[in-house]
Amino acid sequence: MTQDAASTAQECVFCGIAAGRAEASVVYEDDRVVAFMDLNPVTPGHLLVVPRKHAVGLEDIDEATGAHVWSVGHAMARALRRSAMRCEGINVFLCDGEAAFQTVFHFHLHVIPRHAGDGWAIVPDTTERARPLLESDAQAIRDAVALAG
Amino acid sequence: MTQDAASTAQECVFCGIAAGRAEASVVYEDDRVVAFMDLNPVTPGHLLVVPRKHAVGLEDIDEATGAHVWSVGHAMARALRRSAMRCEGINVFLCDGEAAFQTVFHFHLHVIPRHAGDGWAIVPDTTERARPLLESDAQAIRDAVALAG
Repeated sequence: MTQDAASTAQECVFCGIAAGRAEASVVYEDDRVVAFMDLNPVTPGHLLVVPRKHAVGLEDIDEATGAHVWSVGHAMARALRRSAMRCEGINVFLCDGEAAFQTVFHFHLHVIPRHAGDGWAIVPDTTERARPLLESDAQAIRDAVALAG
Repeated sequence: MTQDAASTAQECVFCGIAAGRAEASVVYEDDRVVAFMDLNPVTPGHLLVVPRKHAVGLEDIDEATGAHVWSVGHAMARALRRSAMRCEGINVFLCDGEAAFQTVFHFHLHVIPRHAGDGWAIVPDTTERARPLLESDAQAIRDAVALAG
């Protein structure tokens, strides 16, 4: 069974929305992506952009589809700034993997309007990392770039 | 004075890195973007992708450059997964505006490797929003899409 078939069998909620089988408040759609309101928003106006074709994360979404999801997220961010929704800033957020807060395993880009005092916070604060460590980190990642095509 | 000139005059740190005038641990670069290690990482391996041409946020970066920043972030995420860095998940994060945690006002996409117990958390939890409210939110954003081109 392919991943697509497996997801359908398990009723992947975002596949259901993309196919029009599950309820959603749709903001935008085209042949490749659908954007709709998050049912559990960080702030009112929080929306998700998902590819119609099932993909779990950055490993299995193709580059062109990923870039299109981003571009639609960009357009939705611009729309939020011009809308009646409260929006003083925007976070665009992708969670790839359980360790990174992913809870629905169908690729989705969060677009979140922000305003002062909205109560959203990220903890803890970061600390500076010494240059020699940053250099060795950079080398480790450069070594892997060629493997990641 | 153009925005580029103003930024240079104020020594925008990411313009300095893009031009090779400021120190950075560079992972990748091409004619449009530079990727380098965040000096204050959430986790080791945390890197930033920035456009060479100064832009503040989603309002003033052009669509094609934004999509290219995303695509390079996607490639960097894949490299992190294959690298010697600890990486069980990835967050991709954009902060657009002070209300959205932006602190350096040159567009930058965060690519953050995550692992269980890394101590990064987002608070508070969200709560479900009723469908009629989601529908009116969606309508407000749809009304604004045409204004956002």
